[in-house]
Amino acid sequence: MAVRTRSIRRSLGALAVALALAGGARAAGHAGEVDPRIGTGGDGHTFPGATVPFGMIQLSPDTAMPDFKHAYKWAAGYQYGDPTILGFSHTHFSGSGHSDLGDVLVMPVAGEAKLEPGEADKPGSGYRSRFSHASEVARAGYYAVTLEDYGVRAELTAGRRVGWHRYTFPAGKDAHVLLDLRPSIYDYPGKVLWASLRVHADGTVTGCRTTRGWAPGRELCFAMRFSQPMVSRELYDRESDAPYKGFRGPGNQPQDRDAQNGRALLGVFDFGALKQPLVAKVAISTVSEANAVANLDADGRGFDFDARRAEATAAWNKALASIDVDAPATQRTQFYTALYHAMLSPTLSMDSNGEYRGPDHQVHKADGFSFYSTWSLWDVYRAQQPLMVLLRPDLSSDFVNSLVAAREASPFGILPVWAYQGLETWCMIGYHAVPVIADAYVKGVRGFDAGRALEAMVASATYGPYGDLADYMKLGYVPIDKEPEGASKTLEYAYDDWSLAQMAKAMGQTKTAAEFERRAGNWKNAWDAATGFMRARKSDGKFREPFDPAAAGYGSDYTEGNAFQYSWYVPQDVAGLIGAMGGDARFVQKLDAVFDARVDPAHFKNVEDITGLIGWYAHGNEPSHHLAYLYDYAGAAWKTQERLKRIMDSQYAPRPDGLAGNDDLGQMSAWYVFTALGFYPVAPGSDQYAIGRPFLPRAVLHLAGGRTFTVTAAPLDDAHPYVGSVTLDGKPLDRVYLRHGEIVQGGELHFTMQAQPNREWGRAAQARPLSMSAYP
Amino acid sequence: MAVRTRSIRRSLGALAVALALAGGARAAGHAGEVDPRIGTGGDGHTFPGATVPFGMIQLSPDTAMPDFKHAYKWAAGYQYGDPTILGFSHTHFSGSGHSDLGDVLVMPVAGEAKLEPGEADKPGSGYRSRFSHASEVARAGYYAVTLEDYGVRAELTAGRRVGWHRYTFPAGKDAHVLLDLRPSIYDYPGKVLWASLRVHADGTVTGCRTTRGWAPGRELCFAMRFSQPMVSRELYDRESDAPYKGFRGPGNQPQDRDAQNGRALLGVFDFGALKQPLVAKVAISTVSEANAVANLDADGRGFDFDARRAEATAAWNKALASIDVDAPATQRTQFYTALYHAMLSPTLSMDSNGEYRGPDHQVHKADGFSFYSTWSLWDVYRAQQPLMVLLRPDLSSDFVNSLVAAREASPFGILPVWAYQGLETWCMIGYHAVPVIADAYVKGVRGFDAGRALEAMVASATYGPYGDLADYMKLGYVPIDKEPEGASKTLEYAYDDWSLAQMAKAMGQTKTAAEFERRAGNWKNAWDAATGFMRARKSDGKFREPFDPAAAGYGSDYTEGNAFQYSWYVPQDVAGLIGAMGGDARFVQKLDAVFDARVDPAHFKNVEDITGLIGWYAHGNEPSHHLAYLYDYAGAAWKTQERLKRIMDSQYAPRPDGLAGNDDLGQMSAWYVFTALGFYPVAPGSDQYAIGRPFLPRAVLHLAGGRTFTVTAAPLDDAHPYVGSVTLDGKPLDRVYLRHGEIVQGGELHFTMQAQPNREWGRAAQARPLSMSAYP
Repeated sequence: MAVRTRSIRRSLGALAVALALAGGARAAGHAGEVDPRIGTGGDGHTFPGATVPFGMIQLSPDTAMPDFKHAYKWAAGYQYGDPTILGFSHTHFSGSGHSDLGDVLVMPVAGEAKLEPGEADKPGSGYRSRFSHASEVARAGYYAVTLEDYGVRAELTAGRRVGWHRYTFPAGKDAHVLLDLRPSIYDYPGKVLWASLRVHADGTVTGCRTTRGWAPGRELCFAMRFSQPMVSRELYDRESDAPYKGFRGPGNQPQDRDAQNGRALLGVFDFGALKQPLVAKVAISTVSEANAVANLDADGRGFDFDARRAEATAAWNKALASIDVDAPATQRTQFYTALYHAMLSPTLSMDSNGEYRGPDHQVHKADGFSFYSTWSLWDVYRAQQPLMVLLRPDLSSDFVNSLVAAREASPFGILPVWAYQGLETWCMIGYHAVPVIADAYVKGVRGFDAGRALEAMVASATYGPYGDLADYMKLGYVPIDKEPEGASKTLEYAYDDWSLAQMAKAMGQTKTAAEFERRAGNWKNAWDAATGFMRARKSDGKFREPFDPAAAGYGSDYTEGNAFQYSWYVPQDVAGLIGAMGGDARFVQKLDAVFDARVDPAHFKNVEDITGLIGWYAHGNEPSHHLAYLYDYAGAAWKTQERLKRIMDSQYAPRPDGLAGNDDLGQMSAWYVFTALGFYPVAPGSDQYAIGRPFLPRAVLHLAGGRTFTVTAAPLDDAHPYVGSVTLDGKPLDRVYLRHGEIVQGGELHFTMQAQPNREWGRAAQARPLSMSAYP
Repeated sequence: MAVRTRSIRRSLGALAVALALAGGARAAGHAGEVDPRIGTGGDGHTFPGATVPFGMIQLSPDTAMPDFKHAYKWAAGYQYGDPTILGFSHTHFSGSGHSDLGDVLVMPVAGEAKLEPGEADKPGSGYRSRFSHASEVARAGYYAVTLEDYGVRAELTAGRRVGWHRYTFPAGKDAHVLLDLRPSIYDYPGKVLWASLRVHADGTVTGCRTTRGWAPGRELCFAMRFSQPMVSRELYDRESDAPYKGFRGPGNQPQDRDAQNGRALLGVFDFGALKQPLVAKVAISTVSEANAVANLDADGRGFDFDARRAEATAAWNKALASIDVDAPATQRTQFYTALYHAMLSPTLSMDSNGEYRGPDHQVHKADGFSFYSTWSLWDVYRAQQPLMVLLRPDLSSDFVNSLVAAREASPFGILPVWAYQGLETWCMIGYHAVPVIADAYVKGVRGFDAGRALEAMVASATYGPYGDLADYMKLGYVPIDKEPEGASKTLEYAYDDWSLAQMAKAMGQTKTAAEFERRAGNWKNAWDAATGFMRARKSDGKFREPFDPAAAGYGSDYTEGNAFQYSWYVPQDVAGLIGAMGGDARFVQKLDAVFDARVDPAHFKNVEDITGLIGWYAHGNEPSHHLAYLYDYAGAAWKTQERLKRIMDSQYAPRPDGLAGNDDLGQMSAWYVFTALGFYPVAPGSDQYAIGRPFLPRAVLHLAGGRTFTVTAAPLDDAHPYVGSVTLDGKPLDRVYLRHGEIVQGGELHFTMQAQPNREWGRAAQARPLSMSAYP
């Protein structure tokens, strides 16, 4: 790792500055060790801007907002290789595949204010500006860049509900701030359904925008204030081809100075020649302009940018203090950036008065909890949410409350699937809010009504119209002639069912537990012993033909994957899968074949999201994430260790293109954090973590109740990649899994590393993680 | 009149039934004497459906909702000559020129449910149905019709916030109810910006729709319940050409059974074969679905249609009891229908919890008053609002509170111009909320904060960007090279200013009073002594050339009028106008020339709204409404009497096409009511009514405090069209005006009618109504 990192340093001058600073900031807390630009190139889809942990505001520069047909690359609004900045918008997803947001785009302009963004390759063609990475500073909670076309230094920081901008204009030039309500991420003509923009007598600017994006009909309101009085302003409605605009308001554009409604609104606020930097603060609300103003009042007093930046830094220092690690600076940057990325979702989606918008698009009020949204559940149930259960059970409790509240406001009566700002997108498959809740409950998270939660889980698992659950309940599988991607759906439903059963069991709801334990065995209905793959059946019970295990993507039996990747999706019953596959040796052989296959990356060129290939193993997408840990279940823990080193070395790097695939709202990063610590939650909903191998000499987890859990490893270098032995609190640990209780009660886990594999450690049947089939 | 009415009866069989019933219902109250179908043909633009006085729900059949370029005729959704009914929607304007609404369209269907409305001239091509006027019953608060294509008897009634439907389906046929969120009045492709539709577990149907109509960005929500359980339902999104719809929800259409979002939503609710009539109730809210449900709960208990109908009838009996008249049945029907039409605006626009949407599109809460909207102010300030000041000062107080509250929620800080459902349309000219408030205050209406009201009035009269008030304040007139229709605007602003001054004076705000008294004289800046007409000046002070006194409409110096019509618009200073025109004789001569001109009606064929011609006098539009009364000011009261008879005889009839022009939210009807009583408020804001002549043998006004004011006339027939003498409380009245206080203190006004004009009565200078120039 050290060698590799040095070579990266040489090639990335700009980043070296950041890394050096990160090292220097170490004493002050881990916030300074985060480099938010990791993942902003390539397929990472992270954003470099300013936010606080789980904050409502994720304020970041946007370099492009292209048509959604060409927008995959710009899912976070920013691509490291782009030459211009369009402006700074207040909402972003961190690492999503599909996307939206980019709301309330603000751009400072010195001199003449152009009214269109212009083209990136034609300097001066619009209000966008060139920039260079040399002028960029990206930290946890802070971002700065010089907009070269204007000579404006732009700095951003964030509170939970307020984004802060500080713009230093060149002397003698008129200072303008543009507010463009037209563009958004994954844009297309007609996406803005309606917008409003208003300047109040006290200079507060408010407005709302309803868009037809990923969550169609999404309304977002905002309120904005400036530290200096406006000299003048113009509010434009730039729509030219409207069939009917209603009667014109007072005055004619561009003289409309007080309010505009329309689909293409743009505000230009003029401040004359300024002698001091201009500070702007923006609050948002999914509910109303009045709530946005109230959020501004509650969370955004004054205009002291430096004080707000210090608060954001402090918030990150506090959040990242959950884990102290000893490691070289570059590895620390990787680790803390991963932990940072794992703390960007779900986001607060509730106003200061407790109101929030639910999946019914109506306004609700939270009673005794904070409502969070941005739920990339197909991704984050795997490791990002379990990481929060481990590190932040207090927040996990609010997350569960939020899921249950969302279900109770759902027109369909089911838990979120892929939700943000309270609204549902129906993206991806499964009902993975169920394992999120089950994992929290089984691991002791409380502070929510378990009865209501279980009711919500059962409702989600039995709602016939969703993803053909009707047939799944009747047939025990999702028939491919009725519903696409039937194999993946059958497998994921069965796992979700199992997790539900675990919570029901823990609650003493034995009837529900038994019913869903039974359903958890439905993975067997996808198993085709003849080909040795998981496959989709038709309604008549026969597997669909013809069958190509390499086929992936839309129309296939699978969701973002193929038979090589999806045939391992039985996290609840790996022992059962091993049995089906013919025993340990055959299982390991088949797993090796996946990692060692020779696969042309072009094979997946038409399938977004499948990246980070090692053979058929695709670390860039979630269905593969547990594969390396499956060797543990077959008594071949040393192979888990070997595969993990290969993945850690090849799929993560401390540079903009250092994520092998979409960070997926922190799932990729949470995988990194767990794996670096040495263990991983293969089957959330159980209390077990499969042990891999640590990648840090020493890590101290600061847990609830002031307890600490320390993981150490020695000798830890490339020459000693295998686990020789393990002790827990000084006693030998002869199994390859940890229990949640062993961690949270505090203690010390020590790994003795060695040059050669220890093929005996974890080989005995009782040393392996428990699977459904192996339970008493 | 009697002769005329008999001939109408012979020719209108269907209406004769209604009239006979109206006579029969007399003993039970005046509700039965209303025929809501008056004005539903021709240019009246009234609707025949069910509502209560000033009710939020105006539930009525729609016969067409064409593209707004062809929609003028269907401004109320219904045209008497149409052969089919599209459905029943819950919001309508009564008598507007431009239009919108037609929200929440519901249609009962027996047998197969077609999903498109189809074409009126192709029976069976869609869900619309043929009907015949013979099966129609239209009463105040009740409407019924047989939908012939389905054999369904449909009945409607209304509460304040709830519309009630009772559908009797033919035996043995499956009963369906269609809910179509696509069409609206003044429709066009793309008008629906977004809509939602949801069926709750308890069978309640809710949804919202945002449209880009007259008030762009208007959101209306609803809640609907049925007396019988649904057997099944389908929710459709019928949009075919959407660039991007987001991910599909659970299931695929048309199986989407729980919720839909989109721009073209349609719900089909199935009830199987019913043995009893189906009752549906619908509440609306401008705020939210939750408020619509709360409105349904608060105002719509149970499913007893007959009881709700009885309540609606009782509400009308109470409202119409303000005036008892003695007259033949047909004239009673005319009179009470006019009074009914004068009580349909403004409409309640506030939910049961006090919340309402304001002109800033945000939600507000009324504190201590009820919020009303639907403000056709350019029309109703003339007679409809003064009629309410006289008959319902309690409501007038709420109306003023509503105007002031709307101003305080206005992004522009000004009073409504033409508003509905809280939102502004900017239709027509002037700031006529000012005379509405001034008239109420001057006539003793209280219960509002006069200081805040005056502040709102001054703000509206000094808001530079509105209708070029900036130049008006600077130059004393609106320059035509800067702003269209400058002559009309100058004249109307000057009158509004005068009314403001009257209120300021009454409040002791002498400085404000003096300032606006001064502005009230600005009418003189439009007067061109050379041509003898009011004209528009340019910024350089010169009148615009060339000048054609007959030119009207868009681009002219005038608003919906020409120089012959607009040159009389100085209601605040008719004496001054007489002076400008060269004295009484010349004034009367010029006024005669207007009425007696020979004008080809085709002259105005390209100008909507100018109808009801008598010479240049156009009773179908408001600028002419005070003209006949102006003779009073020139000492020629007998000519007022003569002209009024001609207007009453020719411009009103108790039949569908019986209104000469748009009823304009009750202004045409209020003119009828005042004129039938014998007096008219030429200059609201003064406490005077010009006396015309009565058209009823006896009318008793039941006023606040239990007082009555009785108007009698004898002998009253076509042979005695002139006023011979008048007594007030038995004493001779030698002036041609009444003071408000003389009416509301109670008393008796008696007219002795005669065959020949009494040219002396009211001739003396001191007998004439007071004008600004004549004030001390």
